[in-house]
Amino acid sequence: MLKVISKFDLQCAYERIRKFALKTPFVHNKSLSELLGCDVFLKLEQFQPIGAFKIRGVTNFVLNLQPQELQKGLVTHSSGNHAQAVAYVADKLEVQAHIVMPENASSFKKLRVKSLGANLIESGPTYQDRINTCESVQNKTSAVYLPPFDHPWIISGQATTALEMMAEIGDLDAIITPLGGGGLLSGTALAAHYFSEGKTRVIGVEPELANDGYLGLQRDERITEMQTTTIADGLRTVVGEMPFRIISKHVDQILTVSEEEIIKAFYLIPERTKYVAETSSSVTIAALAGYKQQFRNKKVGVVLTGGNVDFTALPPYPERV
Amino acid sequence: MLKVISKFDLQCAYERIRKFALKTPFVHNKSLSELLGCDVFLKLEQFQPIGAFKIRGVTNFVLNLQPQELQKGLVTHSSGNHAQAVAYVADKLEVQAHIVMPENASSFKKLRVKSLGANLIESGPTYQDRINTCESVQNKTSAVYLPPFDHPWIISGQATTALEMMAEIGDLDAIITPLGGGGLLSGTALAAHYFSEGKTRVIGVEPELANDGYLGLQRDERITEMQTTTIADGLRTVVGEMPFRIISKHVDQILTVSEEEIIKAFYLIPERTKYVAETSSSVTIAALAGYKQQFRNKKVGVVLTGGNVDFTALPPYPERV
Repeated sequence: MLKVISKFDLQCAYERIRKFALKTPFVHNKSLSELLGCDVFLKLEQFQPIGAFKIRGVTNFVLNLQPQELQKGLVTHSSGNHAQAVAYVADKLEVQAHIVMPENASSFKKLRVKSLGANLIESGPTYQDRINTCESVQNKTSAVYLPPFDHPWIISGQATTALEMMAEIGDLDAIITPLGGGGLLSGTALAAHYFSEGKTRVIGVEPELANDGYLGLQRDERITEMQTTTIADGLRTVVGEMPFRIISKHVDQILTVSEEEIIKAFYLIPERTKYVAETSSSVTIAALAGYKQQFRNKKVGVVLTGGNVDFTALPPYPERV
Repeated sequence: MLKVISKFDLQCAYERIRKFALKTPFVHNKSLSELLGCDVFLKLEQFQPIGAFKIRGVTNFVLNLQPQELQKGLVTHSSGNHAQAVAYVADKLEVQAHIVMPENASSFKKLRVKSLGANLIESGPTYQDRINTCESVQNKTSAVYLPPFDHPWIISGQATTALEMMAEIGDLDAIITPLGGGGLLSGTALAAHYFSEGKTRVIGVEPELANDGYLGLQRDERITEMQTTTIADGLRTVVGEMPFRIISKHVDQILTVSEEEIIKAFYLIPERTKYVAETSSSVTIAALAGYKQQFRNKKVGVVLTGGNVDFTALPPYPERV
């Protein structure tokens, strides 16, 4: 496995992912800009196939495989957008995807993966159950395991989001992304490092209830376990090893936001922009609102990472102040 | 007042409204097309300033006024998107807007109008109260009254939506719009009549609970009063006189949809498209789902009329079948 991701790796990923991932719109939003006191540009990853940026890393990973590896199929464990990305890409390439999901995952999420033609395998409810089931599928099928974030091919794939943003607007003061496993944030940091000449700051945002990245940077040591119930379910995971290494070196700042701020921002986004974004994406807008002074009059690129909202389980609308 | 709206009136409106109204995107949606079995193109009027198509008619109306009339200010009664459009245009032209709203309108709606700089005047709760208050403001200020739909300038302005759609895709089999007061539907019908050579059918959609247009066409007589509680609050009004005349002559069909279908479509839109649209817009998608056979394999242009959803009062998510 690559220990270092080069500028050239990112450039190759940028070309490679075009097979399945779109160059999504990157749009200025007047209403949010006025409200937040800075120039807000939104990267609309909701408009990817499967409705989230995860398609980038998965595409880059899969197209790095040898044809004979690929033929054995793909396997992963996830109940979120990563699972859908794997199912989608496998379907397009006409190989089998095996998706391990905990039996207590919502029927909504199971349905989405099945409708993409994947082989859904239910595991016990714990994280270890998922790993075990995933390994047993691998052993039986020799399918290739696709990690959700902790791999250079995934990180390089996610980096293409920032590459597109910087290609379109050369003088962004900052790029803000959510921080979960860290694939997107570390990729973004590398993209800015290699291509912005230090002009564009990279900032990650975590829920206060899942602030392992923030604490890890403070202690200069990755936190490897966390129990959390944050509503931003895509960010419940701890930061991976390789992402943590890159983030430690190249990310300027981690901000944290409360559950209430996340929910407020979740509703603020469609009110102001007419787009929907997941709570795992709305942490970014929550940070712009919560740290207003820091961003005043800056040109800020915000990654709205996905739009797969479960409308059967919307959070209650917060009280207006 | 013009009794007939000519082709030239529409062409003039098309140029005139550019001062304030955008040429909104008109996009194919793959996910809805697959689900509904026809080619769905969405006209995204949520992305107008104020988040709804009403800006078109208001702009056309106001720019038809003489400067000395305009200087006296504008007045209307509405608690919805028409009020916001009037407030917005008045603000841009630096004239005073007086908006009459019933005292029991939501504080959310009142806030929106006030934030656009309009003079908000509260009236009693009945329709007659609104009219009376509006007339007394007119008498005091000599401000020009802007009707929400029953006027040739408004109708010509709304017609520009369909003009843009047909300019972009010349061979639409049908255009579908909601039917409330009838400004948009009658304008659309005239646009198709003058510019599509009869190739594009025009279809209006009403809630079953507000089906005065449907019944009026059956009886060949406009229905002038209706009590309704439909969730599609923008469609609670009866069809106006001039719109009814045009619709009788040029609209091919009125379809009706149930409250449950409207709510399902309300959630289906962001699930499938990542855009939000009001319940008053989702009637159109509800009709495509409810009359699937009729639209099979057709190329259908759907006007998503607005995106000003009140997130404090979302309808409960319907049971999945």
